[in-house]
Amino acid sequence: MFNIMPIDQQFSAVIQQKIDLKTKPLGALGQLESCAKQLTLIFSKQLDSEQALVAFKPVISNPSLVVFAGDHGVASQGVSIAPSSVTSQMVANFAAGGAAINVFCRQLGWQLEVVDAGTLNTSHDKRVHNQRLGEITAPLNTEMAMSLSQVEKGFALAKQRVHSLYEQGCNTIAFGEMGIGNTTSAAALMAAILSLPASQCVGKGTGVSDEVIAKKIKVVEQALQLHQAHFDDPLMTLAALGGFEIVQITGAILAAAELGMAVIVDGFICTAAALVATRINANARDYMLFAHASDEQGHKAMLNALHATPLLQLDLRLGEGTGAALALPLLQASLAFYNDMASFADANVEQVV
Amino acid sequence: MFNIMPIDQQFSAVIQQKIDLKTKPLGALGQLESCAKQLTLIFSKQLDSEQALVAFKPVISNPSLVVFAGDHGVASQGVSIAPSSVTSQMVANFAAGGAAINVFCRQLGWQLEVVDAGTLNTSHDKRVHNQRLGEITAPLNTEMAMSLSQVEKGFALAKQRVHSLYEQGCNTIAFGEMGIGNTTSAAALMAAILSLPASQCVGKGTGVSDEVIAKKIKVVEQALQLHQAHFDDPLMTLAALGGFEIVQITGAILAAAELGMAVIVDGFICTAAALVATRINANARDYMLFAHASDEQGHKAMLNALHATPLLQLDLRLGEGTGAALALPLLQASLAFYNDMASFADANVEQVV
Repeated sequence: MFNIMPIDQQFSAVIQQKIDLKTKPLGALGQLESCAKQLTLIFSKQLDSEQALVAFKPVISNPSLVVFAGDHGVASQGVSIAPSSVTSQMVANFAAGGAAINVFCRQLGWQLEVVDAGTLNTSHDKRVHNQRLGEITAPLNTEMAMSLSQVEKGFALAKQRVHSLYEQGCNTIAFGEMGIGNTTSAAALMAAILSLPASQCVGKGTGVSDEVIAKKIKVVEQALQLHQAHFDDPLMTLAALGGFEIVQITGAILAAAELGMAVIVDGFICTAAALVATRINANARDYMLFAHASDEQGHKAMLNALHATPLLQLDLRLGEGTGAALALPLLQASLAFYNDMASFADANVEQVV
Repeated sequence: MFNIMPIDQQFSAVIQQKIDLKTKPLGALGQLESCAKQLTLIFSKQLDSEQALVAFKPVISNPSLVVFAGDHGVASQGVSIAPSSVTSQMVANFAAGGAAINVFCRQLGWQLEVVDAGTLNTSHDKRVHNQRLGEITAPLNTEMAMSLSQVEKGFALAKQRVHSLYEQGCNTIAFGEMGIGNTTSAAALMAAILSLPASQCVGKGTGVSDEVIAKKIKVVEQALQLHQAHFDDPLMTLAALGGFEIVQITGAILAAAELGMAVIVDGFICTAAALVATRINANARDYMLFAHASDEQGHKAMLNALHATPLLQLDLRLGEGTGAALALPLLQASLAFYNDMASFADANVEQVV
């Protein structure tokens, strides 16, 4: 379904040498060094000689963040702090520019797009892309959240959105989400894919009580029991447990990786989508950088499964892609040092190894 | 010596309420919320009414980062990976714009100043401020690193530098350092002030071997033994164990706090200077925000002593103020959400507590 090339590691040593000859102790820029290396590998894929790579100055161009919103039938089962109506209210807030993600995107230079992936109240705001797969998913603990054809439609719509951004010159993309109830869906996906008990995957979402956590665990356990026959098929798993926004994020990640874009993964929900994406096509992992380690207890386990070390740990638990937005300056800083910092030879500094 | 006012907490609840009414779950912006609150408290000190505070939009203006360089006699005792000559070579690199801190300051909007606080080779570059206290400190394990009058001169010069930036409209200042051997000096200061054994304070610096670490511990133990009579006096402690750059950073932190500027503290060396500063005037702590938790083993203990939670953990071990430089977009993001994000009422979003 997706033709994703693994990243060619041919020139990896050339990139590492360029990093190691900068005027700093070996490895002293920590995570920025691995970040620079991965971004350079992603962005240099057209280059076919060592000389071309040495001269190459990778840059992030037209970074774009797409927020997908979707409603979840499971929200009516007491797993969330807010009613489903808040999802559409927040879509309106995104369209009007008043949410945290709007503020951060404006400040940091992200182009922001808002997608209604399927919410209770259809947005008629022209600033919202209509990619609706329905009004709300079915409750995942009693039936399939959606049909397989809805998953496929979601992938196709997400792919169109990513291609449109790519054609505008975007080489770095991030995803955000809004959907009351979606931490329950993401926890169920995680449990299904990593074969973990619900209790290790469910967290407090944006701030529910212990009582609600117990309810969330029970709901996820019911869902796992009901749908377990599907868990060897990631698309059917998405249909059983996903949300309209999670499905489209998964498809968008795969589409972006297929195009060779850098994919910035943020937070519990998007990480669950990224995890599903790697089960559909393992090569997608090569294009992912991780923005923020959230407080959700299951997040660390997913990050470990993905061998991921996020750049930020700010105790964010908002979603919307806020962690990804905030990571952009660090990604840019990694390329700035790679491109512009003097080498020992340039600066006449004694190299000590 | 410094007249530093504690931050007035009178309107703290007003600021917190403004944060809590933004369209997000309570506390969901994590460390950015505490950051916004502290910066707003610092920048609003002239305001004298609740109404004025509600209307107030705090901004970071003319952020400035000052790198102080100094040479350390102790470097000749086998505690460093590089010879002292590298300090002056890096000063030339800073002046020419080729070091990591130059790259990050250009990218992120910091004004960068470079100060020769006392290095082996006097810089005659006009881009380097001459604030020399000497060529190199005496080895701290065999004598006083410098005299008390050198400390006092360092404070006076640092204060002038900070005042000059303040008069140019700077309200946010950070400090960086370069000095072969300075992690040994910082570890000794930490041990003296926190009454900890050398082994809990000495780390690998920018990357020395286990053998060199053992040597560093021994050197610090000698220094602690030799100078212990001075440790109830922070100025004498600085004279005994400090470096020319560390002394000036300490003085600069105190001068900036006296002027009511936000002080961004970064890394092991600057945190040691900040620790000394709080022992000279405890109110200085109110003006400090912490940028990066470094890998140096003693850093966490110092941060705990200062009740500090840095914004970043990127495994940086370069110094130069690079962590502080990289934290600026997060500080700006915290004020951007505080100033520009919609409230529940603004956006017609149901508030759920």
